[in-house]
Parts: sequence; C-alpha cells; structure tokens
Amino acid sequence: MTKSEKPVSVELHHSEGLKFEVNVNGRKLKLNSSDMMEQAFTPMELFLVALAGCTAMDVQWIMDRQRQKLNKFDINISGRRRADDPRYYERIDMHYSLSGSDVRKDAVERAIRLSQEKYCSVRAMIKDAVKLKITYAISTGPQGETRYTYGP
Amino acid sequence: MTKSEKPVSVELHHSEGLKFEVNVNGRKLKLNSSDMMEQAFTPMELFLVALAGCTAMDVQWIMDRQRQKLNKFDINISGRRRADDPRYYERIDMHYSLSGSDVRKDAVERAIRLSQEKYCSVRAMIKDAVKLKITYAISTGPQGETRYTYGP
Repeated sequence: MTKSEKPVSVELHHSEGLKFEVNVNGRKLKLNSSDMMEQAFTPMELFLVALAGCTAMDVQWIMDRQRQKLNKFDINISGRRRADDPRYYERIDMHYSLSGSDVRKDAVERAIRLSQEKYCSVRAMIKDAVKLKITYAISTGPQGETRYTYGP
Repeated sequence: MTKSEKPVSVELHHSEGLKFEVNVNGRKLKLNSSDMMEQAFTPMELFLVALAGCTAMDVQWIMDRQRQKLNKFDINISGRRRADDPRYYERIDMHYSLSGSDVRKDAVERAIRLSQEKYCSVRAMIKDAVKLKITYAISTGPQGETRYTYGP
C-alpha cells in the first residue's frame, strides 16, 4: 500500500540494563523490558502496534476507496504469550470498531478480508505461526453498535 | 525472558488520513504511512524495532550471564520489502556490534544462537516466512573490530 523502494533501516544503541535507544531515520524511541517501563516500549508491545497499524491503514484506505465515510475507527489488539520459550503470541485477539452513518457490513468485511489476505505485510509474515481471532463492531447511529465475528 | 502473565494490549485510534494515535497502557506513540512521517513511525519500521529489540535484550542478558562485560552494544537492522502485495520483508539484514576488552567470539556466537533459536519471540513468529542474514562485529580495543557472519 505504502510504496518505498529503499530498505527500511533502524539502529539500536544499548544504554543500561535492558534499555535501548532506537533511531529510525532521526525519529527516536526507547525500548525496555517489561519490568520498568516509564516511557519505553517492549519489543512485544511494538510487534502488536506493527500488526494492528498495518491492518488499520489497509482498512482505512479500502473504506475510503469504497466511499464509506468513517467518523471513528479504533482497533483494540491483545496477545497472549506462550508459557515456554520462545514466548511468542500463541493467540492474538483483534477488534475493529467503526462508526459512520452509512457504514455497511459487507464493505467492512471486505476491507478486513483484503487486508488480512492480500495487503497486510505483518500479517503475512506470521500467517502460519500465530492464531488470530478477529471481531468487529459497526455503529451507524445513537442506538449503539452491532458486533460480528470475522471468519475467512 | 521477561515474564508477564497478563495479555499484552494496545489501542489504536484513527486521527486523519492514515494517521493513528497509539495507546500502550498509557504510553503514547504515533503511526503514519511512509509518505508523511514527522515524529510518527510506520508499522513496518516498528516491526523491525520489535525484532531487533527482542534479540538485543536476549543477547545483552546472555552476555551478562556469561560475565562478558560490554562497553558498547549496537544493532543495525534493515529490511527489503517485496515488490508485490503483501509487501512483507523478503530479506532482513541484522548486524550486532559489540565492544569490550574481554569479549570472546564464542560467547557472542552463543548468545546470538540462543536468541535466534530459543528465546526471541518475534523471530519465532516469522521463522518460516522471512530470510534473515546475520553478521556481527567484535571490538576489544583501539585496533578496530573484526567482522563475522553468523551461521546456524
């Protein structure tokens, strides 16, 4: 979706303990282990941000193309880690929440499907390793939202 | 390595265009597509930060356990994306750079191997999907560094 021909590059510099300073082409970020967070992030948190951000941009872009105007669009994502090493996510729950007076279920389902199956690069890299459970909710007015489960 | 029994959770809120505000348990981050960056990050940049951060903490921790004192420890990582959708990384180059007067090659190689094969959660999730090329360099004094290629 977002074209960039040159490689994506990142530098990490150790500061102390398990803290690292990250430089992404001049933009800064701090990493730390989960014990002492302050304003730093853990690698596994950033992995969820990458996954959710990837599909969020896809869905926003496809909804725009379908002329489906969104007043509000949120994603909640949470991952449960394995008990044994390597402690990757054995399951990830992702919930899309979309609001707009004319938002149609079929348009949302199509946007999520295109992202999950065709466009989302982070999703593609973990396809065989991680079980993803996807739900979404649509709100078209003050009467509240309707919830759906996404199935491929 | 870093134990946390409760799920890891992240919220994304759409702001405008392809921009999203991220909330990670009160810590904030901005996402954007690659066209207009400012202080925001792209999902694919954060994926590389997650991967490098994961193995960085493993290697630092294992070097500590091996009583290998590091004066400096950096990681450079870059990824080349596929030309077609999904545009995930077809190849990632990761370079570990370690300095310390008593740093031994076998200890570094062991730390990298344990991370890559046993501990790194992000690595485990992309094991079958992405080709990773790993190199490392050790510097023990003012005479410069020696470079090595890591092979499994």
